[in-house]
Amino acid sequence: MTSEVASAEASVPRRRTYSYLGPAGTFTEAALAQVPEARGQEWRPVRNVGEALADVVEGRSDAAMIAIENSVDGGVSTAQDALATVPGLRIVGEYLVPVEFVLVGRPGARLEDVSLIAAHPVAYAQCLQWLSETLPAHAHVPAASNVASAMGLLDGSSDADAAIAPPGILEHHELELLASNIGDNPNAVTRFVLVSRTVVPPPPTGADKTSLIVELPDDHPGALLEMLEQFATRGINLSLLASRPIGDELGRYRFVVDADGHLEDERMADALMGLRRFSPRVTFLGSYPRADRAVVRYPERYADDVFVEARDWLRGLISGEPEAQD
Amino acid sequence: MTSEVASAEASVPRRRTYSYLGPAGTFTEAALAQVPEARGQEWRPVRNVGEALADVVEGRSDAAMIAIENSVDGGVSTAQDALATVPGLRIVGEYLVPVEFVLVGRPGARLEDVSLIAAHPVAYAQCLQWLSETLPAHAHVPAASNVASAMGLLDGSSDADAAIAPPGILEHHELELLASNIGDNPNAVTRFVLVSRTVVPPPPTGADKTSLIVELPDDHPGALLEMLEQFATRGINLSLLASRPIGDELGRYRFVVDADGHLEDERMADALMGLRRFSPRVTFLGSYPRADRAVVRYPERYADDVFVEARDWLRGLISGEPEAQD
Amino acid sequence: MTSEVASAEASVPRRRTYSYLGPAGTFTEAALAQVPEARGQEWRPVRNVGEALADVVEGRSDAAMIAIENSVDGGVSTAQDALATVPGLRIVGEYLVPVEFVLVGRPGARLEDVSLIAAHPVAYAQCLQWLSETLPAHAHVPAASNVASAMGLLDGSSDADAAIAPPGILEHHELELLASNIGDNPNAVTRFVLVSRTVVPPPPTGADKTSLIVELPDDHPGALLEMLEQFATRGINLSLLASRPIGDELGRYRFVVDADGHLEDERMADALMGLRRFSPRVTFLGSYPRADRAVVRYPERYADDVFVEARDWLRGLISGEPEAQD
Amino acid sequence: MTSEVASAEASVPRRRTYSYLGPAGTFTEAALAQVPEARGQEWRPVRNVGEALADVVEGRSDAAMIAIENSVDGGVSTAQDALATVPGLRIVGEYLVPVEFVLVGRPGARLEDVSLIAAHPVAYAQCLQWLSETLPAHAHVPAASNVASAMGLLDGSSDADAAIAPPGILEHHELELLASNIGDNPNAVTRFVLVSRTVVPPPPTGADKTSLIVELPDDHPGALLEMLEQFATRGINLSLLASRPIGDELGRYRFVVDADGHLEDERMADALMGLRRFSPRVTFLGSYPRADRAVVRYPERYADDVFVEARDWLRGLISGEPEAQD
Repeated sequence: MTSEVASAEASVPRRRTYSYLGPAGTFTEAALAQVPEARGQEWRPVRNVGEALADVVEGRSDAAMIAIENSVDGGVSTAQDALATVPGLRIVGEYLVPVEFVLVGRPGARLEDVSLIAAHPVAYAQCLQWLSETLPAHAHVPAASNVASAMGLLDGSSDADAAIAPPGILEHHELELLASNIGDNPNAVTRFVLVSRTVVPPPPTGADKTSLIVELPDDHPGALLEMLEQFATRGINLSLLASRPIGDELGRYRFVVDADGHLEDERMADALMGLRRFSPRVTFLGSYPRADRAVVRYPERYADDVFVEARDWLRGLISGEPEAQD
Repeated sequence: MTSEVASAEASVPRRRTYSYLGPAGTFTEAALAQVPEARGQEWRPVRNVGEALADVVEGRSDAAMIAIENSVDGGVSTAQDALATVPGLRIVGEYLVPVEFVLVGRPGARLEDVSLIAAHPVAYAQCLQWLSETLPAHAHVPAASNVASAMGLLDGSSDADAAIAPPGILEHHELELLASNIGDNPNAVTRFVLVSRTVVPPPPTGADKTSLIVELPDDHPGALLEMLEQFATRGINLSLLASRPIGDELGRYRFVVDADGHLEDERMADALMGLRRFSPRVTFLGSYPRADRAVVRYPERYADDVFVEARDWLRGLISGEPEAQD
Repeated sequence: MTSEVASAEASVPRRRTYSYLGPAGTFTEAALAQVPEARGQEWRPVRNVGEALADVVEGRSDAAMIAIENSVDGGVSTAQDALATVPGLRIVGEYLVPVEFVLVGRPGARLEDVSLIAAHPVAYAQCLQWLSETLPAHAHVPAASNVASAMGLLDGSSDADAAIAPPGILEHHELELLASNIGDNPNAVTRFVLVSRTVVPPPPTGADKTSLIVELPDDHPGALLEMLEQFATRGINLSLLASRPIGDELGRYRFVVDADGHLEDERMADALMGLRRFSPRVTFLGSYPRADRAVVRYPERYADDVFVEARDWLRGLISGEPEAQD
Repeated sequence: MTSEVASAEASVPRRRTYSYLGPAGTFTEAALAQVPEARGQEWRPVRNVGEALADVVEGRSDAAMIAIENSVDGGVSTAQDALATVPGLRIVGEYLVPVEFVLVGRPGARLEDVSLIAAHPVAYAQCLQWLSETLPAHAHVPAASNVASAMGLLDGSSDADAAIAPPGILEHHELELLASNIGDNPNAVTRFVLVSRTVVPPPPTGADKTSLIVELPDDHPGALLEMLEQFATRGINLSLLASRPIGDELGRYRFVVDADGHLEDERMADALMGLRRFSPRVTFLGSYPRADRAVVRYPERYADDVFVEARDWLRGLISGEPEAQD
């Protein structure tokens, strides 16, 4: 390759690819729409979190947006388990999408005619109160996904009269909006993370989160306690602690941990080293800005300069310098 | 009522009713089949865990069998959440059922002709490896339950060629067995609990488990740590610690705890009081024999007589008795 | 015996005896003077703490006043060791005496003529700065006690020109006061305890202290930590933690502990039982009002009613009562 | 300077000076006799620990030998307090001296004629049982030091018939040995430390001790606990924990800590930094070989290479390297 070609290539930056749970109109697409860097790039719809992460690992995509937790249902097990077992990944961003549902029908449909409703079981469960009050005589037919429930109305694959779907569906398909905000919990929100291959973490912002997967070294009373102490003794708050079965037998778990702060914060770096010494099976998933941009609070005694001062003090002891008196 | 009638009633014990996730053939039915007291009694199939527990609370059933955890997927969220929020319930027994799947078709069907497979999404995921290898060209149609997937083949409501179902289905319906043990994890097992209204716990057996729901008093660094210390400082091992969102906002969790031992063990009683003082929102779900009958091990210093001795010692101090010298 | 005689006996109560480190004029006598019940009773001077405690154990005295700690020198080892090893004793009160010293001479003596000074080594050390400035050319002759140093001036057994003594000496002997307040630390204070045979502790006042001797169960990393946690996890502050060699070999210690609160406080009773379970070698020395009458502060979650409520809750669980919902 | 002169200077090393509690014959001299480097050097007797340390600080001596703890009496308060308050010092070695006492008289004296015995009060207390049995009618005259008690017999300054002294006295003075091994505790031993100005610590030997003075940051329940956790969570055992009053008021203490291991052990360096972050008032007194040469044991998870591995792992995370899979 000649240098002219190289220079030409450099001046036309490569288009980036983002995998997400498709098709267009999903909550995951709404999360991806929040990523400024993803605008105008290639968005690659996939069928499940496994495909999304495989795209990243195998180089078909630069990053994948995946749902990781729901304020009503809790952790998304498949996503947590995939992050725990697929190597070479890093979380680089976090995004929140309100869980709002609409009831849609074929063009011209009317709410009062609805009796059979297609819906993913989880979405159905989240709208059950509204449905019971508004359409007490309805029946439910399960759908494989929130968007598939609505698509089936149009492509003839579904017998249903209406479907529960995310609002984004209306931007992509000619559907009749029968009702909005039909979810039972108005505060429901889903947390998404953007996952890339292993990279240098984005720089600290003061409002960061660090995600980890920790397997306890053995099953004695207090192992979990000791793991949590690694954070508590450095003034680090955990915003998430979830257990997931390792899968080989009942009673063996790994823990999914979200800790307030960034890998480059002294207290977090110290906690991570303590954690690593405690258990060789610690997976660092990433340090990245929190979706809510809430600044991390911590006791002053765990500030960076306290760590730096202690390190300097130790260095002085080793070199035999007299201690300054205070 | 005359005494003759009363006596007649007493000599013909009332038939007991057990609710379970139906219809016949489910894993839950297989769990209920393990309960000696349930044999020959009325088994009442219901559609979901909510109905099962409502049956118990409202007196339609004496007990309900519900799935609580799966060795592959983890805690059954709906069951954990129901136990956390429905008052007046007690777990009185624990049962394990191996997760085995069969592939069934209509009478006369052949494996090589299968292309469309009905399956509940979770069951489908647990057989995906076998399906990919054996029937690489198959397509999946989601079903609302494991048994419904097979029933649809017979009642004409499903277009599928075959269904993934628990082995128990074959005892109840005329289906063609196309393949057995198609699950990807041969050790997969589901844990069930039998739930009654609040009763005196069954007596300790030495191989017991105590289930609790704990809400932390507030969200300061170390609150979870302090909760776990209530157990660790009494030599009590936890076999389960799962977090479930309280549901009102992201980041607020309650914890589902299974602790080794029985409410009437001194160390457990002491831990429960410590827990209660620490958090007013502790729900005791029950002390009951472990399904695996594994005897609970604990350091000798946490034995019942050590607690009794300390209590006697304290009583002596208060009454001003001279201490015996040893 | 007639009732008139009994009544006569009751109206002439037995005279009580109090042992203290004599002779008259010591700090210990000043401490005993603070005890209202001791006024007008028999005060029995003894030569050391061993004699004082033996008087109590063997019934010659009802109680003994002994020095237990000095704000400058720390714990009084002999007193701490005696309380740790002599059985059948209880601390029933605490008293503080300011450590003030005077320099005294024979009648007619003058400060400028003083060159040889008799003093107990500890008292001498506490006045060394004043002596170095005021009498730079003086020499020191050690005395066996603070009072003996002064007595020797009068009975001819000492060659010294002056003696360091407690101010109380002037009430008992014809000595020339050469200088007052010659101690180097104006805040120095000695803590005394009144010790009786084992009795029911005085009732709680809200400003109490509980004294203990604890031997750790074995010498593993963390045994002391575990001991301290018995207090910390019940919100109990320690005002004293001192180690004393057990005496059989280097590196084996027992701990002298003063904890804020009374044996009849629920949290203290619970801590004592925890301590007893942890180590069979716990000696309860007593719960008694603090000398400074400072009300004990503790987090609300460790209040008595929280303990009572938790105990009631546990009782309800065991008896199978439905939990009240809050 | 010519090379001949330099070489001449090098071949005649400067004579080193060692201060010790004199005069010749003390236990401290016996401790100093155990130091190979001190043989043939100048030994400088002083009157107390303050003078000894002042010699070092002000350059009159290269090192001072001071008693720090006695297996019967516990910590030597004056030495502990001096090390806590005099800056610029380092402990560089530890030595044990058995506490044996002899009873000596003037030449020609006989045991049966002894009635008045000169002795330092501490030595007297340690021989009291033997004296009570052997010389029940004796009287005690206090002496300022163990050696002074014997010297007074010879120089006429004492009226006593005999003196209690260390055995070393016989190598320096013409005294009559009346009885040997008169101490009540045959295992009594005194621990001495050799103190120099601040220097680079001697290299780790695997059987080292680290001495510290720690002031707790404030007086809340659990501050001491938190201090001890700095050691326990790194698998470090403490061989000494003593409290000393800070002296300004009752109830304020600093802690004298001896921890197993050396400053250059990774776990100790990490603990010291943790301690420093926890409290700005930590004084490092030195890391030095233990007198008993007992190799320090610790759990494998606190080995140096575990710390190094964790640091490398952290460095890899920060630089964005993919984690190696194990």
